[in-house]
Amino acid sequence: MPIVQISLVQGRTPERKEQLIKKVTDAIVEALQIPKERVHIVLNEVTKENIGRGGVPLSKLDS
Amino acid sequence: MPIVQISLVQGRTPERKEQLIKKVTDAIVEALQIPKERVHIVLNEVTKENIGRGGVPLSKLDS
Amino acid sequence: MPIVQISLVQGRTPERKEQLIKKVTDAIVEALQIPKERVHIVLNEVTKENIGRGGVPLSKLDS
Amino acid sequence: MPIVQISLVQGRTPERKEQLIKKVTDAIVEALQIPKERVHIVLNEVTKENIGRGGVPLSKLDS
Amino acid sequence: MPIVQISLVQGRTPERKEQLIKKVTDAIVEALQIPKERVHIVLNEVTKENIGRGGVPLSKLDS
Amino acid sequence: MPIVQISLVQGRTPERKEQLIKKVTDAIVEALQIPKERVHIVLNEVTKENIGRGGVPLSKLDS
Repeated sequence: MPIVQISLVQGRTPERKEQLIKKVTDAIVEALQIPKERVHIVLNEVTKENIGRGGVPLSKLDS
Repeated sequence: MPIVQISLVQGRTPERKEQLIKKVTDAIVEALQIPKERVHIVLNEVTKENIGRGGVPLSKLDS
Repeated sequence: MPIVQISLVQGRTPERKEQLIKKVTDAIVEALQIPKERVHIVLNEVTKENIGRGGVPLSKLDS
Repeated sequence: MPIVQISLVQGRTPERKEQLIKKVTDAIVEALQIPKERVHIVLNEVTKENIGRGGVPLSKLDS
Repeated sequence: MPIVQISLVQGRTPERKEQLIKKVTDAIVEALQIPKERVHIVLNEVTKENIGRGGVPLSKLDS
Repeated sequence: MPIVQISLVQGRTPERKEQLIKKVTDAIVEALQIPKERVHIVLNEVTKENIGRGGVPLSKLDS
């Protein structure tokens, strides 16, 4: 603990996701004053078709 | 908020998932009396192999 | 399945939450054409202090 | 209910995942004294690139 | 990893929940052949009012 | 999107949680290059009794 789940739109590069994991871990370590080994993160990549905002899939909102 | 996550068996058509997002959003708007822009939905499609019911994967229950 | 988790701001009445469960279930039944007994919903009530939007807790945004 | 979600590293065989579903269901039935039909499990398989531990993706930790 | 979340009806004793954590961990260790220190479990206790089955809160189904 | 859920041990002060929300949001904005208004965070505070590590509740590990 803490355990972090981040749902985000699919398609970021491995480098970008690595940055995300690094920066979010650092933020938690700083805010909660805990060793970074205790921070677990799971990225949940979701297609735009499977995300709804205001009743409409993101795949439709962007087009 | 609200944030809705729906885990469902993989394989519905995009049209069916679009209907799901639309109807669930409308239901929440009506029940909670909030603007529909505030409703976020994430669909989590799962293979039958990865769903267990009564100790058995759905992929085995259907065959 | 499907399994639905809805995170919402704490404090709705039992009647309002009962309506939410009923209407969301009906919406899923209609969209996916499945028996309503298969729809499982979990409401996750969250205090405004524990919800962040744009980097700020909802408890601060409303005041 | 209960509803169980297990996030695990992607790549186990179907047989291994079937064993996981069976054994976890049995464990819950024994601990909570409930009929096994009430236990729902969802496996969430995640790539090593999408799992962070101590600020680093598992895909980097293993290499 | 693995990370396990179990949503269950509120109200089990601490002893019962301790048994649940122990038995589910053992089941995962046996099925996946991993060291038990790697198994993280979070119990999510939910009131019957906040659980829906077939469109009705559990608090109504039991009475 | 993105939607972030952070499960953490119950009992941080409101100020600490506000810092957590702020810093994690900033980290995501920087890593993904998105407007901060799009970042939604939900904190899930869990008692030590309801967290298992290595088969034992945290409430037992600390004593």
